[in-house]
Amino acid sequence: MAEKLSPERRDEVLAGLAGWRAVENRDAIAKSFRFADFNAAFGFMSRVALMAEKMDHHPEWFNVYNRVEVLLSTHDAGGLTELDVRLARFCDEAAG
Amino acid sequence: MAEKLSPERRDEVLAGLAGWRAVENRDAIAKSFRFADFNAAFGFMSRVALMAEKMDHHPEWFNVYNRVEVLLSTHDAGGLTELDVRLARFCDEAAG
Repeated sequence: MAEKLSPERRDEVLAGLAGWRAVENRDAIAKSFRFADFNAAFGFMSRVALMAEKMDHHPEWFNVYNRVEVLLSTHDAGGLTELDVRLARFCDEAAG
Repeated sequence: MAEKLSPERRDEVLAGLAGWRAVENRDAIAKSFRFADFNAAFGFMSRVALMAEKMDHHPEWFNVYNRVEVLLSTHDAGGLTELDVRLARFCDEAAG
């Protein structure tokens, strides 16, 4: 099982992930993505969904039209783990 | 452009859509769907996304693992229209 990030690693991760922010009152990170339209937004969600399923690690996310809000945390571990870091990097890649 | 539902039609629609509720402080309807797992939840979202794109009428939705919260309203009309009724019925079909 993935272990929670140490405070040092957590700071390092947040500094290295552009646009991701620490979520208030939860050990989680979040980022808002904007796309040209719904087609592009849902295309992004589809790519992330396939990766999430492969990792067996899933986002919490909200979509309206061209906007996708992604929140990552590892429920089993009660906070941020390396799984979230990997999925966050993949989101950035998938958003191109 | 779709017109806002009359108060009578709005009541009729809400009575006829099982599990859909009126949203507080917005002229919108919402429903929470639960599935066996993420695969089933995202499968549902994919079916609804294709229909939404075809209708050019899109949901506001939140997903975490096997749960999908769908909110429908017609932004251009400032409230509920027949487009929302059609998409709500399609969501029920797709979840079925």
